[in-house]
Amino acid sequence: MTARPPIPTTDDLLTRYQQIRDHSLKLADGLTAEDCQLQSMPEASPIKWHLAHTSWFFETFILAGLPSPPAPFDPAFAVLFNSYYVGIGPRHARPERGMLSRPSLDQVFAYREHVDRLMADALSNDALSASLRQLVELGLNHEQQHQELMLTDLKHHFSCNPLKPAWRPAGADQAEPPHNHGPLQRIAVEGGLTSIGFPGNGFCYDNEQPRHKVWLAPYRLASRNVTNGEFLAFIRDGGYQRPELWLSDGWDWVVARQQRAPLYWQVPEDNGWQVFTLHGLQPLKDHATLSHVSFYEADAYARWAGARLPTEAEWEHAATTQLHLHGLADEVWQWCNSAYLAYPGFRPASGAVGEYNGKFMINQMVLRGGSLATPAGHSRPSYRNFFPPSAQWQFSGVRLAWDD
Amino acid sequence: MTARPPIPTTDDLLTRYQQIRDHSLKLADGLTAEDCQLQSMPEASPIKWHLAHTSWFFETFILAGLPSPPAPFDPAFAVLFNSYYVGIGPRHARPERGMLSRPSLDQVFAYREHVDRLMADALSNDALSASLRQLVELGLNHEQQHQELMLTDLKHHFSCNPLKPAWRPAGADQAEPPHNHGPLQRIAVEGGLTSIGFPGNGFCYDNEQPRHKVWLAPYRLASRNVTNGEFLAFIRDGGYQRPELWLSDGWDWVVARQQRAPLYWQVPEDNGWQVFTLHGLQPLKDHATLSHVSFYEADAYARWAGARLPTEAEWEHAATTQLHLHGLADEVWQWCNSAYLAYPGFRPASGAVGEYNGKFMINQMVLRGGSLATPAGHSRPSYRNFFPPSAQWQFSGVRLAWDD
Amino acid sequence: MTARPPIPTTDDLLTRYQQIRDHSLKLADGLTAEDCQLQSMPEASPIKWHLAHTSWFFETFILAGLPSPPAPFDPAFAVLFNSYYVGIGPRHARPERGMLSRPSLDQVFAYREHVDRLMADALSNDALSASLRQLVELGLNHEQQHQELMLTDLKHHFSCNPLKPAWRPAGADQAEPPHNHGPLQRIAVEGGLTSIGFPGNGFCYDNEQPRHKVWLAPYRLASRNVTNGEFLAFIRDGGYQRPELWLSDGWDWVVARQQRAPLYWQVPEDNGWQVFTLHGLQPLKDHATLSHVSFYEADAYARWAGARLPTEAEWEHAATTQLHLHGLADEVWQWCNSAYLAYPGFRPASGAVGEYNGKFMINQMVLRGGSLATPAGHSRPSYRNFFPPSAQWQFSGVRLAWDD
Amino acid sequence: MTARPPIPTTDDLLTRYQQIRDHSLKLADGLTAEDCQLQSMPEASPIKWHLAHTSWFFETFILAGLPSPPAPFDPAFAVLFNSYYVGIGPRHARPERGMLSRPSLDQVFAYREHVDRLMADALSNDALSASLRQLVELGLNHEQQHQELMLTDLKHHFSCNPLKPAWRPAGADQAEPPHNHGPLQRIAVEGGLTSIGFPGNGFCYDNEQPRHKVWLAPYRLASRNVTNGEFLAFIRDGGYQRPELWLSDGWDWVVARQQRAPLYWQVPEDNGWQVFTLHGLQPLKDHATLSHVSFYEADAYARWAGARLPTEAEWEHAATTQLHLHGLADEVWQWCNSAYLAYPGFRPASGAVGEYNGKFMINQMVLRGGSLATPAGHSRPSYRNFFPPSAQWQFSGVRLAWDD
Repeated sequence: MTARPPIPTTDDLLTRYQQIRDHSLKLADGLTAEDCQLQSMPEASPIKWHLAHTSWFFETFILAGLPSPPAPFDPAFAVLFNSYYVGIGPRHARPERGMLSRPSLDQVFAYREHVDRLMADALSNDALSASLRQLVELGLNHEQQHQELMLTDLKHHFSCNPLKPAWRPAGADQAEPPHNHGPLQRIAVEGGLTSIGFPGNGFCYDNEQPRHKVWLAPYRLASRNVTNGEFLAFIRDGGYQRPELWLSDGWDWVVARQQRAPLYWQVPEDNGWQVFTLHGLQPLKDHATLSHVSFYEADAYARWAGARLPTEAEWEHAATTQLHLHGLADEVWQWCNSAYLAYPGFRPASGAVGEYNGKFMINQMVLRGGSLATPAGHSRPSYRNFFPPSAQWQFSGVRLAWDD
Repeated sequence: MTARPPIPTTDDLLTRYQQIRDHSLKLADGLTAEDCQLQSMPEASPIKWHLAHTSWFFETFILAGLPSPPAPFDPAFAVLFNSYYVGIGPRHARPERGMLSRPSLDQVFAYREHVDRLMADALSNDALSASLRQLVELGLNHEQQHQELMLTDLKHHFSCNPLKPAWRPAGADQAEPPHNHGPLQRIAVEGGLTSIGFPGNGFCYDNEQPRHKVWLAPYRLASRNVTNGEFLAFIRDGGYQRPELWLSDGWDWVVARQQRAPLYWQVPEDNGWQVFTLHGLQPLKDHATLSHVSFYEADAYARWAGARLPTEAEWEHAATTQLHLHGLADEVWQWCNSAYLAYPGFRPASGAVGEYNGKFMINQMVLRGGSLATPAGHSRPSYRNFFPPSAQWQFSGVRLAWDD
Repeated sequence: MTARPPIPTTDDLLTRYQQIRDHSLKLADGLTAEDCQLQSMPEASPIKWHLAHTSWFFETFILAGLPSPPAPFDPAFAVLFNSYYVGIGPRHARPERGMLSRPSLDQVFAYREHVDRLMADALSNDALSASLRQLVELGLNHEQQHQELMLTDLKHHFSCNPLKPAWRPAGADQAEPPHNHGPLQRIAVEGGLTSIGFPGNGFCYDNEQPRHKVWLAPYRLASRNVTNGEFLAFIRDGGYQRPELWLSDGWDWVVARQQRAPLYWQVPEDNGWQVFTLHGLQPLKDHATLSHVSFYEADAYARWAGARLPTEAEWEHAATTQLHLHGLADEVWQWCNSAYLAYPGFRPASGAVGEYNGKFMINQMVLRGGSLATPAGHSRPSYRNFFPPSAQWQFSGVRLAWDD
Repeated sequence: MTARPPIPTTDDLLTRYQQIRDHSLKLADGLTAEDCQLQSMPEASPIKWHLAHTSWFFETFILAGLPSPPAPFDPAFAVLFNSYYVGIGPRHARPERGMLSRPSLDQVFAYREHVDRLMADALSNDALSASLRQLVELGLNHEQQHQELMLTDLKHHFSCNPLKPAWRPAGADQAEPPHNHGPLQRIAVEGGLTSIGFPGNGFCYDNEQPRHKVWLAPYRLASRNVTNGEFLAFIRDGGYQRPELWLSDGWDWVVARQQRAPLYWQVPEDNGWQVFTLHGLQPLKDHATLSHVSFYEADAYARWAGARLPTEAEWEHAATTQLHLHGLADEVWQWCNSAYLAYPGFRPASGAVGEYNGKFMINQMVLRGGSLATPAGHSRPSYRNFFPPSAQWQFSGVRLAWDD
């Protein structure tokens, strides 16, 4: 049977609630109302929408569940800021999120303050049942996921502007994968009958459970992630022109898009490779960790390198037993050769939040680890991130594996 | 040979320059920076872009043509705010105009002030050659065209927001077609060998020239435009379900879009028809002039009504000889059964402004008249507006004609 | 009022019926059942479908109109072989015509024989009313149109096969535009008040009527059509890389398709230009008449050449007054700068055949003349052919015009 | 290390070669050349293409590998009939296979005879090396896969014809899933540490290897496949209208296609449900095995039924240990909730045949078992079939599973 997370205490929740909610605002600091409305593609939401939707989550799942629920801040928000919860009701179409000049960013800030005041009251007065406190915990993790998306989405939005705006000046904040020194080593892992899945202390998502046995053959895992310079060697060896290196769908993707490099890389004219970053356009750094590759590119690179991608079980097992692996969760998410599917015995959480994870278990590949944009403390070794194999706009990179 | 417009004097130009430029700002009054960034479809540009592009026109075609041209306000604007002038250089892609959170609306206002100050200097100092003064005249007419587009585009942008925002409260400004009283009469027009095209006094576009002879058979033209109530009768008679009333491409358009009413009409549930307007969602008024129909709908309606659409020559001839026609240029543009093609002997204006009209002479139908959104004094009987036959988002309506 | 064609006598009809019906079979001679089923694009129908549809026309409009109509050959054919006559009933979807392996080609031949036998009976017994005899005349002209389409469609079908099959060996039949000797001259035409439209003897389509007055300014028309060699000069001068030569939609078409040459031309590798023809792949002949260009290409070529395309009124007036123009109707159809719209006073034919022409009067440009694939005697100076401006698969070429 | 199949003896191969090759012709028996050219969608190939491609396989991988290789039957076939082997050279585009009226069906029959004669010579003379004999074995299994595709593709081709042709009259051959009597039972399976993958005797594909350990929790598997009648209950319970039953992508698929039933089912008008079969249009049989559902439909049905789909490891383990399961491999392929990915230690076969399976290991779900269209002896418990989750045109059904 699936272990359920322990019930958080109210004191702890209030402190963390305020810290996490405040962090979302800090990420938006310095952005204009116009910046916060941008939507460059259906998959990437406006910053304003992220700020509103995360508040909608608390209003809908916690405040509306109180014995005497407060009046909604604005009844229209129930539709505007529902992401995909069919159980809650209708939703504004995802590709149309950028069409919402109203409510204004200021109104969304007021919405956040309204929700935060009511949530602080409820948490201070110990008014929340155990099940609502669990939903607050979920809401905080949900907000942290959107914090990462705020950065990856904003990066994509800004990349569409020929002026190549910067979110932060270089040096002010770390917003791009760091240098990645040192030779790559192949760490041997013994395998055998082991277990993966959340081991049962603290919060986790339903998709990390139940913890279950898996058999692993011996394998080796790279001591660090692939660098830009290593991927440049693949490009220079004709990697994007050689169909034998690619999965069939991956090759179709390369041809249809005339793909020649990772997302945000600019094919060099005079001055060598440039790359668009959250600090604006920058020279490409050979020793920095590779990022913004699709599963197709990760897989082709691995094949070219005489390696393969790890499975999620291999990744998790190594991450929990080999504590010296470099860049595990602070650089880039690492594509695994595992489809995002239910664990044996998986049960979605009950109620509308059961739509959180389970209904996306098709046509996506798992990424493990965490990135520089992942809020501190949010990820863990059993954490399952997932995106379609063509997605490039996350901080997604490559860790190689080999059969032993 | 094509008559060229008289050269305007500087005094006249300065006064009109200031009035017209000021009017653009008045239209944007009350809109937020977020509102001004909306782009709901590739054909409709953001208000901010309109405000910048019209300034770019003066900077590019007049200021840059001065003997000692001023430095550009921002060199990047040459690409960002060029609409389609291949002769000027590269352009930011049209569907991506809504992606420009930078420059901000405030920066665009500063750009306008900068251009206006330099233009006022040049006009005050009588520094403009005759040909530059002609280009100022073109620039002012160009700005007026964009003033109409600002309203039609904004209406479309706002229509995509479930909150159905209003540009102005009803009653404050006239922003929708008015009531249209009185029975429809069939005005007999004699025809014969006549001439159409701009007769030669004052400004006109190159596409209105040369004035040339046409032979017209006798015909009748409706004394006023079609009303909402009249079009409702077409709908209630199954107009959108009867292929025999439609051109073949029109029927395909109806089927593909499941079209059931003009743009902005909302199929009634409880309370009868509603229509989205620049004053927000309003009850449909039977006696108001029909608007926002495509050529396909106009043509099908005419066929259902036992009539036809006039040709542009019939329209222009009647407009210049029958001075008592109602709603000629102050309600809606009127679809003509004329393709937008060159007049005999047509010569595009020289230089990059020669791209203004000529290169669009394919796949478009002519509209004549003018609408409530057309700036006063902008249109004239020889004026040729043009849009693809599927376009609905302009203030486009129907005036019927009959063979005699 | 529209003149209606004289009523053909039965004797004449029977002879012509048999000749024309036989000619369709001759065109299919040597083709396999597999060849006759090919459908390479929605616009191009299988040969088998042409053979069946033309028979369906006689069965539906004449035999079913007899006082004692015969049983249909196969009731299912009413849907399978209706092209676009909404008034007749439902239709098999056009892009799915190539999916009809049943009925077989042999069954279609049997269908033709069945229809021909009953038609011969009716024509021999003088059983047809005047209005049915007029419909027979229409059916024969209809069949001739499909004879041309059989060749243009087959050429497109075969062009998709890497084996590049030939319909006929070169030399056996003339199936490609001939050599076109001699310098191009500019024939001066005086213009003035003239008339176009079918003058009233014999058969014509409803869209050629009513004959009506038009005023023409003086102009000049080329003495012959443009050749491959002349168009090659346009290509070599960068014609497909220069947006200033193209209509805006035309340039979008060039970019989207990466168009570099007329349809069927193969960019040279070693041996110079090759062109796919009904005789298979052949070396391009410089002195042969240019064919398979879209309106966009015709228009861009004319602009590059310092000329323009004629209007259909100019073309028809010259064709009826300048009898020495070369290649008027036996080489290629000639794109006119006229949209395909109703003539003043146009009335569609009554009944379902009223859908023959009128409902296509939008988004198409007129072609005049006739091609080597047009059956002898089918075309005439008032004949209006029409296709969308992007269409290339007809035998469509260019005759230049100039203002005088 | 991956076990490789035993090397077949020549005698055995010749007999099986002739039987299997002959069976392909039997399947095409009674079809016309026109039938054999149909291509109703890019995924479904013409029968003629299947007949040629399977011959191309032997010519390319065996005959061309002989010490003195024979001249190719037709050098053009190397391109026309290569399916997807990049290592062999260029390929005719898959969606264009229906455009090949040449070579004719008769020429393809001659091609088969030519290849068969040379193959028989080589096999009779014991001229084949061990590695070539292994490739013959692969070629025979390849031909059997295409035999199943011939039936599923033909069914789809014929379904697009309003005449609804039959491949065989009902009763002549069994070409649709049979009646499926008896109550459904939940067979308990113990699980534990077990192994899946081909156990090492005889031929298997590279993707079935290596055999490897997996841990299985206890589970229950349905004693038989789902029937039409059971699926009808899902439809009648609003299954296609309830998003909570579907994966998110599945729901998008339902909405976009307005899906309301499995492929080939016709929504009832007067006479109850009809279904298109290889025997033509037939009344739907409640007790027959459900077929032609996508993974999305299989998954939604299982959720509605309070069950789930089995994993491929669960399926294979049960199939090898529970010998009394009904309809295991003779009715329909059974969708598994397993993505088609490499087994641990997977190595593609060497040479161009290494493209056979490995490059498709993305965006596909596994099906296990076999169908009534699978040639006898072709499948086995370790056999991994795979299709995208939206595919419906295979004989694909549902076997339910439950956690214990």
